[in-house]
Amino acid sequence: MGYTVTDREATRQAREQQVGQRPGTLNVREEAMKPRLFLMAYDENTFIEEEYTDRYDELLVWLRDHPELKHWIDVRGYGDLALMEQLMHDFGLHPLQMEDVLNDYQRAKVEVFDDHRLFMVSRMTDFTRNLEIDDDQLSLFTGPNYVLSFQDDYDDCLDSLRTRIRSNFSTLRRRPMLYLAYALTDVVLDHYYPTMAAIGDYIEELEEAIFADKRPRRLLNRILRIKKDVVRFRRLVYPERDKIAEILRLPDEVMPEELKIFYRDAYDHAIQALDLAESYRDNISSLTDLYLSDQGNRMNEVMKVLTIISTIFIPLSFVVGLYGMNFQHDDGHGHVLPLNMPELYKPWGYPMVLGLMFIVVMIQLVYFYRKGWLTNR
Amino acid sequence: MGYTVTDREATRQAREQQVGQRPGTLNVREEAMKPRLFLMAYDENTFIEEEYTDRYDELLVWLRDHPELKHWIDVRGYGDLALMEQLMHDFGLHPLQMEDVLNDYQRAKVEVFDDHRLFMVSRMTDFTRNLEIDDDQLSLFTGPNYVLSFQDDYDDCLDSLRTRIRSNFSTLRRRPMLYLAYALTDVVLDHYYPTMAAIGDYIEELEEAIFADKRPRRLLNRILRIKKDVVRFRRLVYPERDKIAEILRLPDEVMPEELKIFYRDAYDHAIQALDLAESYRDNISSLTDLYLSDQGNRMNEVMKVLTIISTIFIPLSFVVGLYGMNFQHDDGHGHVLPLNMPELYKPWGYPMVLGLMFIVVMIQLVYFYRKGWLTNR
Amino acid sequence: MGYTVTDREATRQAREQQVGQRPGTLNVREEAMKPRLFLMAYDENTFIEEEYTDRYDELLVWLRDHPELKHWIDVRGYGDLALMEQLMHDFGLHPLQMEDVLNDYQRAKVEVFDDHRLFMVSRMTDFTRNLEIDDDQLSLFTGPNYVLSFQDDYDDCLDSLRTRIRSNFSTLRRRPMLYLAYALTDVVLDHYYPTMAAIGDYIEELEEAIFADKRPRRLLNRILRIKKDVVRFRRLVYPERDKIAEILRLPDEVMPEELKIFYRDAYDHAIQALDLAESYRDNISSLTDLYLSDQGNRMNEVMKVLTIISTIFIPLSFVVGLYGMNFQHDDGHGHVLPLNMPELYKPWGYPMVLGLMFIVVMIQLVYFYRKGWLTNR
Amino acid sequence: MGYTVTDREATRQAREQQVGQRPGTLNVREEAMKPRLFLMAYDENTFIEEEYTDRYDELLVWLRDHPELKHWIDVRGYGDLALMEQLMHDFGLHPLQMEDVLNDYQRAKVEVFDDHRLFMVSRMTDFTRNLEIDDDQLSLFTGPNYVLSFQDDYDDCLDSLRTRIRSNFSTLRRRPMLYLAYALTDVVLDHYYPTMAAIGDYIEELEEAIFADKRPRRLLNRILRIKKDVVRFRRLVYPERDKIAEILRLPDEVMPEELKIFYRDAYDHAIQALDLAESYRDNISSLTDLYLSDQGNRMNEVMKVLTIISTIFIPLSFVVGLYGMNFQHDDGHGHVLPLNMPELYKPWGYPMVLGLMFIVVMIQLVYFYRKGWLTNR
Amino acid sequence: MGYTVTDREATRQAREQQVGQRPGTLNVREEAMKPRLFLMAYDENTFIEEEYTDRYDELLVWLRDHPELKHWIDVRGYGDLALMEQLMHDFGLHPLQMEDVLNDYQRAKVEVFDDHRLFMVSRMTDFTRNLEIDDDQLSLFTGPNYVLSFQDDYDDCLDSLRTRIRSNFSTLRRRPMLYLAYALTDVVLDHYYPTMAAIGDYIEELEEAIFADKRPRRLLNRILRIKKDVVRFRRLVYPERDKIAEILRLPDEVMPEELKIFYRDAYDHAIQALDLAESYRDNISSLTDLYLSDQGNRMNEVMKVLTIISTIFIPLSFVVGLYGMNFQHDDGHGHVLPLNMPELYKPWGYPMVLGLMFIVVMIQLVYFYRKGWLTNR
Repeated sequence: MGYTVTDREATRQAREQQVGQRPGTLNVREEAMKPRLFLMAYDENTFIEEEYTDRYDELLVWLRDHPELKHWIDVRGYGDLALMEQLMHDFGLHPLQMEDVLNDYQRAKVEVFDDHRLFMVSRMTDFTRNLEIDDDQLSLFTGPNYVLSFQDDYDDCLDSLRTRIRSNFSTLRRRPMLYLAYALTDVVLDHYYPTMAAIGDYIEELEEAIFADKRPRRLLNRILRIKKDVVRFRRLVYPERDKIAEILRLPDEVMPEELKIFYRDAYDHAIQALDLAESYRDNISSLTDLYLSDQGNRMNEVMKVLTIISTIFIPLSFVVGLYGMNFQHDDGHGHVLPLNMPELYKPWGYPMVLGLMFIVVMIQLVYFYRKGWLTNR
Repeated sequence: MGYTVTDREATRQAREQQVGQRPGTLNVREEAMKPRLFLMAYDENTFIEEEYTDRYDELLVWLRDHPELKHWIDVRGYGDLALMEQLMHDFGLHPLQMEDVLNDYQRAKVEVFDDHRLFMVSRMTDFTRNLEIDDDQLSLFTGPNYVLSFQDDYDDCLDSLRTRIRSNFSTLRRRPMLYLAYALTDVVLDHYYPTMAAIGDYIEELEEAIFADKRPRRLLNRILRIKKDVVRFRRLVYPERDKIAEILRLPDEVMPEELKIFYRDAYDHAIQALDLAESYRDNISSLTDLYLSDQGNRMNEVMKVLTIISTIFIPLSFVVGLYGMNFQHDDGHGHVLPLNMPELYKPWGYPMVLGLMFIVVMIQLVYFYRKGWLTNR
Repeated sequence: MGYTVTDREATRQAREQQVGQRPGTLNVREEAMKPRLFLMAYDENTFIEEEYTDRYDELLVWLRDHPELKHWIDVRGYGDLALMEQLMHDFGLHPLQMEDVLNDYQRAKVEVFDDHRLFMVSRMTDFTRNLEIDDDQLSLFTGPNYVLSFQDDYDDCLDSLRTRIRSNFSTLRRRPMLYLAYALTDVVLDHYYPTMAAIGDYIEELEEAIFADKRPRRLLNRILRIKKDVVRFRRLVYPERDKIAEILRLPDEVMPEELKIFYRDAYDHAIQALDLAESYRDNISSLTDLYLSDQGNRMNEVMKVLTIISTIFIPLSFVVGLYGMNFQHDDGHGHVLPLNMPELYKPWGYPMVLGLMFIVVMIQLVYFYRKGWLTNR
Repeated sequence: MGYTVTDREATRQAREQQVGQRPGTLNVREEAMKPRLFLMAYDENTFIEEEYTDRYDELLVWLRDHPELKHWIDVRGYGDLALMEQLMHDFGLHPLQMEDVLNDYQRAKVEVFDDHRLFMVSRMTDFTRNLEIDDDQLSLFTGPNYVLSFQDDYDDCLDSLRTRIRSNFSTLRRRPMLYLAYALTDVVLDHYYPTMAAIGDYIEELEEAIFADKRPRRLLNRILRIKKDVVRFRRLVYPERDKIAEILRLPDEVMPEELKIFYRDAYDHAIQALDLAESYRDNISSLTDLYLSDQGNRMNEVMKVLTIISTIFIPLSFVVGLYGMNFQHDDGHGHVLPLNMPELYKPWGYPMVLGLMFIVVMIQLVYFYRKGWLTNR
Repeated sequence: MGYTVTDREATRQAREQQVGQRPGTLNVREEAMKPRLFLMAYDENTFIEEEYTDRYDELLVWLRDHPELKHWIDVRGYGDLALMEQLMHDFGLHPLQMEDVLNDYQRAKVEVFDDHRLFMVSRMTDFTRNLEIDDDQLSLFTGPNYVLSFQDDYDDCLDSLRTRIRSNFSTLRRRPMLYLAYALTDVVLDHYYPTMAAIGDYIEELEEAIFADKRPRRLLNRILRIKKDVVRFRRLVYPERDKIAEILRLPDEVMPEELKIFYRDAYDHAIQALDLAESYRDNISSLTDLYLSDQGNRMNEVMKVLTIISTIFIPLSFVVGLYGMNFQHDDGHGHVLPLNMPELYKPWGYPMVLGLMFIVVMIQLVYFYRKGWLTNR
């Protein structure tokens, strides 16, 4: 089935190959995509957007020549070790941090440089069609006039933010550089909700299926799979919440008070996402209870049918067997044996036996009805 | 069934549409009601009450002209974005806070402005007929001579408080402005109890139904639904308790000691509500145990009937089958075969077989009685 | 059954009627008893005891005239709102505290007045015959030369303490006024043990009943009921422990070090009571496991009987049915059909069939014995 | 069965009789043994050991005359109230502490006197043959040149320590007085391991019994009993760990740093014992799962036998019943009814029916084999 | 089965023999291997590697003569008490720490000497073929120019680190002495991942087996065994995480800030390992649910077959029994009894009965099909 593959494989591939390596050794996974570089440079009045893929040197020149602008350097794909090392060198990143970026399975966290720059990791989630949470890592480095972001895929969930930056009327352009880092975090957080909504819809679907007495195949497997998703989602979001809480505790010279109010809002959102996840967990646990009780009920139903049929027919079978006995009315020598089954020789014998059996059945049916076994309780 | 719709839908609608939006962007949900504005202005000797719906400008004039009075500005309904933005601007509210007000699915919380004003969110609960907790948000902003409250519905649970303010003898009128914020919080807390009582009554009803061996249809569904309510109630009240605890930790210049004593009382009430919720959780868990054990007992009962019927009749059927065999007393050539079922030719054969079967049944009944299967244990 | 009525009802009655009331509004429940007032005045050499019911004014005079004595003012019954308000006024109690006293469902707690006086709430427990924990509230206010106690009932668990005070040789008389408050708390704590012991006895009784294979009616109900008691007891005692812990953290000018050593002892006792409660919870959970496993065993036993009977007789019934077939030895035209059941015409046919069936039964019995189904495992 | 008697009885006896007594009142339980007094006096070069039972005065004289030696005063048995009170008075013990000593059911704890002396309580465990944890209390008071220890029994687990003191080469004799208190605590801790090992052995025995498909009688009772032991053991050791943690937090003038390093070691041991207890809990919970699954498997097995037998013979019985019907080949008036069971008059009728039944059985056996019901899965 | 032997035995052997011994007494277990001594001496330009087994004196000489180099003294095997005591003496180790080294069952921990040297314990894990976690202890002492490591086995998981040191280009050689201690800790942490991966593979295998409806023998045993491994792994890694957290809290003069950044990275790794372990626990718990539900489904399936067979044939058997009754068409005296089973004398009697039975069977099959009992739901 492979539905645990994703996270274990990710971790294993990322780590097994480096057992015993020097910590901070950069490794690029084989399947990593060729990096593409995008730049957005803006201030209140200016906005320039350009792709610098394969033109990293020109990007550096641009950055040196325009210190007054705010820059979002957007690196997508890790598949070029030399470029990664050059970025690490040029932007003064720690090898361990760069290792975190490239390993691509890192809990959400924030780290502060001595010069007050920040390194943040967020996890972007997506809910795929086959009920799996797909999560990617977004790594951010902030600098005085840039935010440097890394991610593995070319596609991401940040386009709405790009659109906002492109707009001439965006307040985002007037805010300090660090606000961009917040905005990125916030977009990631916002994308948790569609994931949650998809999970919630699926849970509700299962609920309705059980309530409608339509039991899909492998129902328990599905319940457990969605449970796994919810558990995984919580494990993704808890560090996100902790990260934001840590940001809120940063000194004001690192994170200005005017930005903290936004993080406080983000913190509330993270808490709400966790609340919802807890609520889903409760629902799933109730679903499991329902499933198991339903299983028991089906067994009871089967047993009831068996019992009713048996209880009705077993006595009847006895009666008909009784009158199938071959006790002889005469002993073969002409002597009548009047005690041996005289009923068989009565004119009303057969109708009376039929009547008797009818009465027995009626009594049983009344008993079963009173027990509630005939109604579908 | 839809019984998880409420909270998930609320959150989804509120958030999905704003994925990628600038944080602090105000959105008014389509179904939001047209705002109505009410004012209560009072001090120890004065009391004026007036509706200012569609007359917001006049309200502002009044407020400017009567700084010496205490005002409760009571906004019900969010369905006018322009008015909401004007309120935000005129009362100096932060866009993120205004967003919290309008999103209408916010955990209870308190935030302090730099100028010591407070922003509080409470959740008002109601227990609807079809066993759902209906919760609405009450958002409060305090100022030196006003409390500005927002809620989505025209109807609320605050009428008892309004009656108290209207009374000439109310101590409330003599107390500081902030006391009104407390009084609002307290009324909301007080309304948790009828909700809890309704839940408690329902649990008791289910308990009694099980104990009386009357098993309503879909009992487990009902148990799980009420469990969901209790879980939800706890999730509503925990933040309320934390909010009050945070208020108690506010410095005295923000929240005077003389008011904190009231919040301490409110804290006790919140704790008691949580206690009760915990107690309900225990009861519901016991109910589930009872239900499942009862399910097992029913199965046992069915099995017992089956066993008793089978065990009585199967041997009897064997006996009657035995004497239904066609072993011949003569070999067709006139030779008597004396060993072949001579019982059939005995004068007392039939009565003795009947007697034998009677004895077998008696032995079995005694055995079952001793096992306790005939009594309804 | 109503066994959850006690606490829910108490809370509901106490709170519903006051939804929307001004906090601190005093309410006297209808069924509250008429207050009786008792005074004990003592110092090392003096001891006076008198009932002042309906003579509250004389009590005040006495107190004013004898400031050098220590006084225990013992109010039993709340049924006189005017008196309650006068007490509140004369002893400088806060309306919210008085409300706590009269609501009579308050968690154990301690509050400190600005002038270092204390307000303490304890919960006294009693274990009634029908397996319910009956708990009453003891509210204490301490002053420089008095302890003012409130309780709802005329009967209480404090008589042993009264006897100690009456004794001329009691060290209690020599200790400071506050020691009396401790002594009252301690007596309440001591009364937790008989309650626990009664619960423990009952659990043990149920255990023994299960082990002795005597299954009382409604066993699971009983288990769940006693579980409810234990859970309730824990909810009563946890706040008591927290209260004492808070007393231990009080500054020395409020609670002198020489008294704290006694509270440390009380703290140990509270912890031990909670320990015992936890232990009971474990026992009850084991009982439930035993019960459910026992239920499964009974089902197994029923199934085994059914299986044994069926397995023995079904093949036999087949055999006797076989020889009850009417295949004809001649075709009605005088031709012998020698293949049609020649056994029926053999001289030893019947005995051999009986023998065959005996052998089959023997083989089956051996098989069942080996399976261990005949022994009562 | 009485296996909960030990702790509840101990507590009840100890506490019930003192409900309402003055806290700190000394009580000696009736069954308490007559106290025996032992003294070990030592320093680096000296070692004297003597029993002072019934010669308490001489003991005091010795202590007064030899202030330069270290003394271990070892009181075993509490059955002499006068002596206990004298000890309390002479060594300056607090009545509440003395009460703790004599009650003999006290959680492990440490208390510090104003003059830096210590009062410690440890619980010594023993695992009796009938699977019960037997625990005794060891109470210690430290002084400048003595350790005063109390215990209820004459026999204890401290002999190995005594042997070490007696040895001339023991470093213990050179260490400060307080080290003896540590050594006593450590010996008690060391004795937890044999108890744990005995519990572990028993769990493993039960595990092996289940795995070997040998199911001892009352297996679940045994599992639950050993679970009770483990739970009890944890409740004993947790306070011990907390006690040591508290000792580690004592200021250096009360507990010198050079001794704390030993307590740090003891702390590790306590943690390990708790780790082991947690591990046993997991094992026992797995055992319960195994037991219940095993119970279900047995039921399945019984059902399978029933099903196989019934499914094979019920159709066969139908067939033989079919040909036992008495439809007449002629209508009694000489007319042949050719449609009425002509099979009965065919020469190969009987063998063909036998063959048919054989084929039916074969088909069923193949079906069952494919279902895996014939193999013992 | 013995799968709990490892840890309990290890602890018991290590501790039972020393019950009552002086704490800090060194004991060498009988089966301990003869120690081998290895030295790596290096700085940026130098690298010397030599085995000093049985030449401890020469090792000391080397260390004294080369204070400028960094040394890793690598002791493998404890089986020489004299050497262990000499090491303890020469390197100034505390007897209690040396005892921890030799006991070889110690939780991960860190201790700081007064002179800022460190004592660290790590647990190295390995996952053996028969599904057991094999764990060994790595004990480290750091000094100004050496790291002294102890382990019980000759083989370990540190070879990758040795290779790195041997490399001329290793940055490790340029870093401070303490970095080696970190590198050792990190290698141990890295080796947790293959263990986790092996456990994860095994869980997935079991999952797939259940989903493929192939049920291996003793499936539950296997599930519980792997659960035990995961629980054990968590108990190993939690202290490791706590150790690293404690290192991060060490003052900078003990652990320089430049090294803490590496430990922060290690902390993240430990957290991830624990995350994975939690995730496995969830998976295993889902597996158990699946197993038990599967067990119930199998029972349902068996019951269904039984019910279908019985329900089809029991009525049929009644019918054929009915017409096997011997009611006589004449009373033996020539009088016809027309009511006694006239069907038997009808020309179409037999075919009609066959047809009737066919219709009954059809009706039942349709009923079962509608119930879904014929399809394999």
